[in-house]
Amino acid sequence: MAYELHYWPTIQGRGEFVRLALEEAGADYIDVARLAPAAGGGEEALARRLRQLSPAPFAPPFLVAGDLVVAQTANILLFLGEAHELSPREQAGRLLVNQLQLTVADLVGEAHDAHHPISSGLYYEDQNTEAAARAKSFREERIPKYLGYFERLLGGNDWLVGDALSYADLSVFQVVRGLQYAFPNAMAGLAPKISGILSLADRVTARPRIAAYLASPRRIAFNTQGIFRHYPELDAQP
Amino acid sequence: MAYELHYWPTIQGRGEFVRLALEEAGADYIDVARLAPAAGGGEEALARRLRQLSPAPFAPPFLVAGDLVVAQTANILLFLGEAHELSPREQAGRLLVNQLQLTVADLVGEAHDAHHPISSGLYYEDQNTEAAARAKSFREERIPKYLGYFERLLGGNDWLVGDALSYADLSVFQVVRGLQYAFPNAMAGLAPKISGILSLADRVTARPRIAAYLASPRRIAFNTQGIFRHYPELDAQP
Repeated sequence: MAYELHYWPTIQGRGEFVRLALEEAGADYIDVARLAPAAGGGEEALARRLRQLSPAPFAPPFLVAGDLVVAQTANILLFLGEAHELSPREQAGRLLVNQLQLTVADLVGEAHDAHHPISSGLYYEDQNTEAAARAKSFREERIPKYLGYFERLLGGNDWLVGDALSYADLSVFQVVRGLQYAFPNAMAGLAPKISGILSLADRVTARPRIAAYLASPRRIAFNTQGIFRHYPELDAQP
Repeated sequence: MAYELHYWPTIQGRGEFVRLALEEAGADYIDVARLAPAAGGGEEALARRLRQLSPAPFAPPFLVAGDLVVAQTANILLFLGEAHELSPREQAGRLLVNQLQLTVADLVGEAHDAHHPISSGLYYEDQNTEAAARAKSFREERIPKYLGYFERLLGGNDWLVGDALSYADLSVFQVVRGLQYAFPNAMAGLAPKISGILSLADRVTARPRIAAYLASPRRIAFNTQGIFRHYPELDAQP
C-alpha cells in the first residue's frame, strides 16, 4: 500500500522534509496534489480534502497511511522514522532526533518570517521594509546561532545522532540548501564556521536514493513562493 | 528520583506547558532555576548548564530524567505523556496528541512574534509600530483560525483526543489563558465562537492537581516578559 503525501504542489515548503524521508527510505508514495486534477491533484482538491478529513489536520503537509492520517511535519517524520529505520530504536536517540527536527522547525518558521514578518496574508511587496529589518537580524544573529548549534552538535561525526543517518540529517541538509538558495552571500560568509554541516549536506546529497531524487522531476526547484526565498535585497551585500 | 526542569525562572513561557504536565501527573520535580543561586538556581546557572550539557539543547526548557536530557517543549511532553499516561497508548491517538501539541507550538510562536515581529534581540519599544501591524493580523486572522480549529476538533466531547485528558488539553488551556491575558478584548469578542474550548479550559482549571497548582506560588503570574504579553495598544479596541 502506497503512502499518500498531501502538500502544496508547486513548492518544496514543509512537505519537502517528508519527501526526503520517503525518498531515502525507498518508500512507495504518491504526491497526490501533484497529480493532474482529473486524478485528484491540484490545490483545490487539497484544500477540500483538508476540510473533509476527520480528525482534520490544521494545514498541509499530511500523510495518509492506510487508516492513519498524520499531520505536522515533525510528527510525520516521527512516524516515518520509526517505520523505516530513519531514527534510532532506543528512546534517547529517538527523542534526540525529534528534538533536532523541532529545532529545524523553529529555524524554518524564522526563515519564512524573514520575508513575511507582518502577515502571511499579505504579499512580500507589502511588507518588504519590515522584511529588510527582520532579514538582517535573521542573517546576522539567527542563522549563525542555529547552524553553529548543529555544527557543535555534529562535532567530528558523520551523522548528527549515533553512527547512522537519521531524518534529522536529511532535514539539516534541506535547511542548508534552502539557506544557500535564499541567502547565498550570507551563507558564503558563514561557510568557514560551518564546514562540518556543509560536509554533512554533501554526504546526504551523495546518498544514492537522494541523488536520484534530486536529479528527478520529483524535486521541485526552490522558488519565491516557498519558505526559502531568494530576494537579493534581503541577503548580505557582497 | 525527581525530574529536574530547567527553564527561565521569572516567566511561564514555553516551560509552563511542561510544568502543567508535571503537575497534572503528580510527578516529583524540581524547578531548578527557581531555586536560590546558592542551591543552583538563577539565570546564570541555567545558561551555564545549557552550554555544558552533551548533547546540548538549543534552548530551555529542558528536562533531566536520570541519564536522559530531553529538550524542545513538544518533545518533553511526548516523553512525559508516555511515562505518565497523559497521552493514549495506541499509536493513532499518541500521534494525534503530538500533532495538536505542534499546532499549539506554532500558535505560541506567532503569539511571541505579535510583540516581537522584527527581532527577539530588540526591545518591544523598538519594534512597536511593526508589532501593531502584526498583532492586528494575529488577532483578526490567526487567533480565530487556530482556536476555531481546536473548537471544531473538540466537537461536543470533553477532551480533544479520546475520552481522557491528554497533555494537548493542558496546552490548549494554557494558550486560552495566555491569549485572554494578552488580548482580553479580542478574546471577549471571540468567546461566542469558541464556547467549547472555553469550557475545556474550565474543566482543566477544575482538575484537583491543576487547581492546587494554579493557587500555589509555583504558578508564576503572566507578565510582560513572557510569550503572552498584555500591551493594551496591541489588543482590539473596546
